[in-house]
Amino acid sequence: MNIGIIGLGLIGGCLGLDLRRRDYKVLGVSRQTHTCERAIALGIADEASVELSLLKTADLVIICTPLHAMTKTMTQIIPYLKPDAIVTDVGSVKQPIVEQLSSLWPNFIGSHPMAGKAESGIEATEANLFQARPYVITPVVQTPKECIEKVAEIAEAIGSQIYYCSPAQHDQAVAWISHLPVMVSASLINACMQESNQDVLKLAENLASSGFRDTSRVGGGSPELGLMMAKYNRTEVLRSLGIYQKQLAQVINYIEQEDWASLEKLLEFTSQSRPNFVEN
Amino acid sequence: MNIGIIGLGLIGGCLGLDLRRRDYKVLGVSRQTHTCERAIALGIADEASVELSLLKTADLVIICTPLHAMTKTMTQIIPYLKPDAIVTDVGSVKQPIVEQLSSLWPNFIGSHPMAGKAESGIEATEANLFQARPYVITPVVQTPKECIEKVAEIAEAIGSQIYYCSPAQHDQAVAWISHLPVMVSASLINACMQESNQDVLKLAENLASSGFRDTSRVGGGSPELGLMMAKYNRTEVLRSLGIYQKQLAQVINYIEQEDWASLEKLLEFTSQSRPNFVEN
Repeated sequence: MNIGIIGLGLIGGCLGLDLRRRDYKVLGVSRQTHTCERAIALGIADEASVELSLLKTADLVIICTPLHAMTKTMTQIIPYLKPDAIVTDVGSVKQPIVEQLSSLWPNFIGSHPMAGKAESGIEATEANLFQARPYVITPVVQTPKECIEKVAEIAEAIGSQIYYCSPAQHDQAVAWISHLPVMVSASLINACMQESNQDVLKLAENLASSGFRDTSRVGGGSPELGLMMAKYNRTEVLRSLGIYQKQLAQVINYIEQEDWASLEKLLEFTSQSRPNFVEN
Repeated sequence: MNIGIIGLGLIGGCLGLDLRRRDYKVLGVSRQTHTCERAIALGIADEASVELSLLKTADLVIICTPLHAMTKTMTQIIPYLKPDAIVTDVGSVKQPIVEQLSSLWPNFIGSHPMAGKAESGIEATEANLFQARPYVITPVVQTPKECIEKVAEIAEAIGSQIYYCSPAQHDQAVAWISHLPVMVSASLINACMQESNQDVLKLAENLASSGFRDTSRVGGGSPELGLMMAKYNRTEVLRSLGIYQKQLAQVINYIEQEDWASLEKLLEFTSQSRPNFVEN
């Protein structure tokens, strides 16, 4: 199977690296000549080009461009694709992408390999980034069976844990565990910065430690990423924020009323529930 | 200088260990005979006893009991103290403690060595826990100068970074960087658990990764600790929660209005502000 990868950043680069090591032929496309040269040098692609015509022998094409560029990318590659070529993407939001790209190319299936690191770009590429990490595949009613099988094949090849769900379920789940935390965490930093007593603000900055570091980490991350989450997963992010607001109001109410029994019960519940999500 | 330590848990134990290694004589008091024996065996105290009379030769007494037991402890030790003995504490909230304990013992000064680890109790004791960590000293107008000097001496001896501020400023600062994060983080876990679609909840649990792990960590911690923060620092915690609520509403409003320019500006601000608090 020949695999085309469009967009040779961290995710596209790591997919290429892993798939080549599993003896797939990888055709890499980037807008930058220099990136194409680096893709060959780093072992990410067998062939690399700034020309979309490189994809004419691809059996499976993985679109690894940013969310806002995906529809445009799909439109541009259509003239070069084999009629039975399968196309997937790696976007972190699925409903709008699947809706638009499926309507442009019936052999499209949405997917989302969930791995990452602090650094981005082709130079941050490393082997086995997706090992034991979730690879969410989001077929819809009209998705051809072969699309599901081929994407599952490569996800398995790179050692990922496969999950199947609808685009809507994906977007709801990532709203909870990825997008909501960013908004909650950014609001924490923003709230602290509203402290009008400069002595207290300075002291808070000096005393901040691991608790603040962890809780504020994703809210102090890439503004572009946070913006994309809110833009493309707007409905689900707003839904999760609404429910969050209610839970926060509940906590405030308990403290205002000095209802310590209820607050303790709530904190016991969160302490017991967290291990359902993460180990430590 | 003879140093009395009441309460030989993690903080009391680590203080004893470090101070003995700096050639102070340490007198340890615990309610449990077994803990006293362990304190001697672990090198935490020169002498240890369940009897408060052990403190009769102490020049400086450090109360390391939980917040709710501090006033009672102060009252109980008074009959045994030398008239000029200095007393301090290690409580994570300062206003109520300083107010109550100063009225009971004029030679009292509040302080807060800010270090910790996941484990608690005397067996978790380790050397140099306070090295390069903040030691906040909170004198008030009537605090004798010698109290400040003696506590600063031991804080310096164990390698801590000393900060001086009023009890109110301490409580406001820790509300921002320690207590508010717990409430924000617990509300995140609680909100996720409100998801009524069990498929989505299960998927969210499976997909949760480093972002959720970090943002939810302090909200999934000790319920007793969270409850103590809310109880003893109620006014400041409520103040910070009120400001947080406004910032969260702002974020929601931007997303509802699709005011992406303002949301981006806010996320850029939080990204730029976070390094004022923590390094990474």
